[in-house]
Formats: sequence, structure tokens, C-alpha cells
Amino acid sequence: MKHSFTTIKVRGYDLDLYKHVNNARYLEYLEAARWDYIEKYFDQNIFQEQNWGIAVVRINIRYRQAALFGDVLEIKTWEIDRNRISCTVKQEITRKADGKRIAEAEVNYVMTDLNTGRPVPIDERINYFLDNGRLPEE
Amino acid sequence: MKHSFTTIKVRGYDLDLYKHVNNARYLEYLEAARWDYIEKYFDQNIFQEQNWGIAVVRINIRYRQAALFGDVLEIKTWEIDRNRISCTVKQEITRKADGKRIAEAEVNYVMTDLNTGRPVPIDERINYFLDNGRLPEE
Amino acid sequence: MKHSFTTIKVRGYDLDLYKHVNNARYLEYLEAARWDYIEKYFDQNIFQEQNWGIAVVRINIRYRQAALFGDVLEIKTWEIDRNRISCTVKQEITRKADGKRIAEAEVNYVMTDLNTGRPVPIDERINYFLDNGRLPEE
Amino acid sequence: MKHSFTTIKVRGYDLDLYKHVNNARYLEYLEAARWDYIEKYFDQNIFQEQNWGIAVVRINIRYRQAALFGDVLEIKTWEIDRNRISCTVKQEITRKADGKRIAEAEVNYVMTDLNTGRPVPIDERINYFLDNGRLPEE
Repeated sequence: MKHSFTTIKVRGYDLDLYKHVNNARYLEYLEAARWDYIEKYFDQNIFQEQNWGIAVVRINIRYRQAALFGDVLEIKTWEIDRNRISCTVKQEITRKADGKRIAEAEVNYVMTDLNTGRPVPIDERINYFLDNGRLPEE
Repeated sequence: MKHSFTTIKVRGYDLDLYKHVNNARYLEYLEAARWDYIEKYFDQNIFQEQNWGIAVVRINIRYRQAALFGDVLEIKTWEIDRNRISCTVKQEITRKADGKRIAEAEVNYVMTDLNTGRPVPIDERINYFLDNGRLPEE
Repeated sequence: MKHSFTTIKVRGYDLDLYKHVNNARYLEYLEAARWDYIEKYFDQNIFQEQNWGIAVVRINIRYRQAALFGDVLEIKTWEIDRNRISCTVKQEITRKADGKRIAEAEVNYVMTDLNTGRPVPIDERINYFLDNGRLPEE
Repeated sequence: MKHSFTTIKVRGYDLDLYKHVNNARYLEYLEAARWDYIEKYFDQNIFQEQNWGIAVVRINIRYRQAALFGDVLEIKTWEIDRNRISCTVKQEITRKADGKRIAEAEVNYVMTDLNTGRPVPIDERINYFLDNGRLPEE
């Protein structure tokens, strides 16, 4: 199963009123981890050549433990579902020091054509791209 | 049905690579709107007196349309569910200019005792507080 | 003297480790206030028609008092200097409840041509624009 | 000369309207780099034991080049001045790919007593701490 790991250190500005990482900030952590996943498995030039973007359509995040100042977090990212319209990745955030689960999320996204702003249907060619990180030879 | 409205103007720093409001930033918008809801209906001194906090345990957000630079957004917030452990509020983000739905979320939270970090069970007294914004006379 | 006032309420996610507004967050407050200034005095369509942007080249910010959760802040923005290359605005952040000065900044910026990424020299036409918020009739 | 290097990768949510890293976001980069400096040279337990905090009192930042999506930036941090009241660190942000200077800042801060909220004067003992990262034996 393809997956990536991203390490993030909690900084003072990530905290909020309660001195816990703020719930919004986790979504930045998750996005950083998804870019790492893309970098690991995809030829990113293709996004530019095809003028493709990635649009998140749903995030379902469960916060289990508060992350605190100085915590080092590890985020695992992998694909769990794909259909004709969208993909879903799972992301788990764990504190490295004690292995405690901090949060986990399912993130559903579509590929979009940045010229039109419309989703790109996940046909055979796009499936090949999502599987191989490059386009099929024509 | 108790509910609050919050107006937010999209700023340049809210955007991301695609010149759309970044998915993480919406969670800040939603939190601002929840604080407005609390301010409208609750005696906030009680949170301090009791040393209570609010901990978000789950957010399920659906992004429908991209919000753009300069958009004025309206967020409606209201409670949709409550049990012995947690409450759920619904939040809808709408663009004022055209009434288009931008996003909607369900946010599940618990009251926590900031001394212990443990959730406060939603018993009769807490139910009274959540209904009336103040504690029952003893 | 042309000037604008912007009101901002401190939210939980603006705070940091010390439960004070984080130093980076003030720069978002200041940017919001500068957009308010622009909206008040400029025909914003011109920025799009001319494909002009605004690039901050220097910020000198002095933090005087910590702003805290729930504080309502007022930001005053006005121009203090202009030469052939750049403009400087002054911005003062004050807490409304007690009138205490929270921070003050000088922000130096250039107009840029978004086609070329180069600064636009502040010649007679641009001076007219900066003074009147619209271009001179030709 | 004591100094630290911090590497930061520009993410999509760091950008703004112009697809450049937003001016506020650089202050988060700089803070991350200052924490790295502290971690490298200081026994951090002392901050907690003494209940000391660090309060930024002035930032003077010069933006030279726009950083873009995917850029890898390196931040160098070192102390340039210290008096009886405050310290100043210099921070330079460079793009690794081409060595171009992106921004540079001088950050002036005081040590604060978190019990009183007052600055801690930089006497002989604090000077020793700032030089050696630990307190003198008593």
C-alpha cells in the first residue's frame, strides 16, 4: 500500500486559548502531509502541464488527544477509496514520543481543471495517473 | 431555534495556491462563528468561574463552492444534537452576494474541566446551562 | 488626513503558547486594515483593469501590550510617506476597552505590475491614483 | 558565532492572493527558526522551572523576493545585540535552489516573568544564561 510519513513539530503559534494545537491548524498539518504524499508518488510537472488542481470536497476529522507545544507529530497518509468522481485519503496523526493517536481524518478530493474550474472525471487515463504518478504513453 | 449569524470578509491571506479560501481557514471562520454563538447565548464568566473549556472532538465539513477574495460570507450556527457526552452544532457558510452555499459543517464538542482535562458529563445542571446560558440557582 | 478604522475581535486561534495574540497574527490584522483603507478610498476595479498588485517591502512593528482573548481592537491606518518608488502607511492598534496602545507599525509597499512582477514607478499618473483613488481622465 | 539553520518548505496555504508567501506567514517561519535556535543552545527546562517566557517587542522585516509554492527556504538565526533590557536576533531567509535572499529581519525581544508579566532585567545571571544556555551554579 502506497503511503507517506510526514513529521511536524508543534510550534507556539499553532496553539490556542487552551494551549492545545487549534483545530484549524491540524488541517494545515494534513495538507502538508498530502503534498508530501503527492511529491513521493507523482510527477508534479503533470499538474502544471495539464493545468490540474486538487480541490478538497469533504474533511471528516476526529480529534482524540490534544497536541502540545514541542510535540513531534507523525502523519501517515494513504488512499482508501476512489470512484468515478473523487478520491479519499486517510490520514493519521500520532505523537512520536508516546505513540498516542492525536487525530485521524478522511479527506475526499476531486481533480479539477483549473481552466474551467470543473472536476476532471476519473476515467481510465486519470486512474492510470493516480496509480502510476504519470500519464500513460499515447 | 436559537441561532447566530456571523459575517466574515475574505482577505488576501485566507487564499491559497488556487486563489480560493484554503480549507484550513474555514475552520477558523467556523470557530469565530461559534464564539459569536456563545457570546449571544451564554454568560461567559461562567466558563472562567467553573474553569470550563470547549474541546472539539469531530468536524465533518463539506466544501461546496470556492470562496474568493473580497467575498462576504455569512455563517449560521445552531445546535442540532446533544447527548450525555457531547453536543453537535451545524454551521452553514453562504456567500452574501449570490446566496450560494460555500460550505457546511457539523461540529461535535465536549465541555471539559480545564483542571483535569477531562470531559464534563452533560447532566441536568449542564443541560440547564446549555439551554439557558447560566447555571441553575442552587 | 485620509484614514480608516478597522475593528477586530481577538479569537482563540489568534493566541499562542502564552495566551497572547501571536506576533505573526498581528500582520494579518494589519493587512485586513489596509484592505479596508483601500476599499474606502480606491476604485478597486482599477487594480484588476491595470493588473496591479501591492507588494509589502518592509514592516517595522512595535508590540507594546499583549492583546488577549476576547479583546476588541481598533486599527487606524493612514499614509505617512510617499516617494518615486514606494509608499509608507502607519498603523496603530488600540484596545477599545481601555484605550491602551497594543502595537504600531510602519508598512512600506510598492505597486507592482502583475504581468511583469516589476514595481510600477510612482509617476504623476500613479500619484493621481494614490491621491484620488481613480485614474486621471485622458 | 552561535547560529542555527532551519529549513522550511513553502506550502499551498502559505500563499495569498498573489500566489506569493503572505507577509504574515514569514513571521511564523521566523518564530519556528527562533525555537530551533533556542533548542540548539538552551536547556529548555529552565524556561519552565523559572516560569520565563519570551516576548517579542519589535520586528523589522525586509521582504526582498517573493517565495513561491514548493520553494525550500533556509533561515539563519543569530544574536546581534544585547543590552540590560532586551536582545536582538538577526534572521535571514534564503531560497535554497538559487541562493536568493528572500527576506531578512531583526527581532528584538525581552525575557518575561510569566508570573508577573514583567520583563526580566538582563543582569549577570541572565547574561550567563543567554551565553551558556544554563544557569550558573550557585
